[in-house]
Amino acid sequence: MQEIERKFLVTSLAGISEAYAEAKIAQGYLNRNPERTVRVRIKNDKGYLTIKGKSDATGTTRFEWEKEIQLHEAEALLLLCEKGVIEKTRYAIQKGTHVFELDVFEGANKGLVVAEIELTTADENFEKPSWLGEEVTHDERYYNAYLSEKPFTEW
Amino acid sequence: MQEIERKFLVTSLAGISEAYAEAKIAQGYLNRNPERTVRVRIKNDKGYLTIKGKSDATGTTRFEWEKEIQLHEAEALLLLCEKGVIEKTRYAIQKGTHVFELDVFEGANKGLVVAEIELTTADENFEKPSWLGEEVTHDERYYNAYLSEKPFTEW
Repeated sequence: MQEIERKFLVTSLAGISEAYAEAKIAQGYLNRNPERTVRVRIKNDKGYLTIKGKSDATGTTRFEWEKEIQLHEAEALLLLCEKGVIEKTRYAIQKGTHVFELDVFEGANKGLVVAEIELTTADENFEKPSWLGEEVTHDERYYNAYLSEKPFTEW
Repeated sequence: MQEIERKFLVTSLAGISEAYAEAKIAQGYLNRNPERTVRVRIKNDKGYLTIKGKSDATGTTRFEWEKEIQLHEAEALLLLCEKGVIEKTRYAIQKGTHVFELDVFEGANKGLVVAEIELTTADENFEKPSWLGEEVTHDERYYNAYLSEKPFTEW
């Protein structure tokens, strides 16, 4: 139920040529508060409801609960969400024993590309590809809930 | 997915002697906003996650989505909720072809007793027992989400 994730800006789209999976994602928020984020997501043809708690003191570990829900339920719940649905394409890229999830944002967040890596411990080592830029794990502006309210093109 | 409910104050606890079921309920809110209420409930030993949309123009019909979740998940999610967990005992009372749900609040809402009836249409007729008081369907102060923030004993 705890996830450790680190997030980085991406300086080029070169990594996409190595991606082994790709998914279209649309997501909205029933609550954007980082202490109790409630997210509705459609990923390709599946729906998900995800609830996240606030980060711990290190900013890398967050309580997370997720359930798959029916597509038509996700579509109905998306209509209840705050204005500002996030649209992005997610690419999975294997690097050594780790997987980077590279999110290429569209719509109001077009131009933003970030990569996330899930780790077992906060200080775990991992291979850093050449396209990996500045770490933004601790920068709340890059939370998707924040991007839904204050999109990248309006910064 | 649409519910039509009418809510009334209760002037005496006489109806409880006829109740055919009783449940202890504890519930908190991941969002109290009536446009997108997100509720975590423990009812006896079962957990539920419920999402409600805003009322329609008549104030009686609200979008509602509910899923049963595991008790330990509900307990964990309750910890993320806004302060102000609601505690109440719910009694089911049959009157003719309808069922009243009578909620006797405890804790910070002690002294408040309300009855709800679920209907098929907003103007459907139903038997009105002697303990049924003023209708409060349209009064948002009696929304449980509101009671969680502004409990009855503080009115």
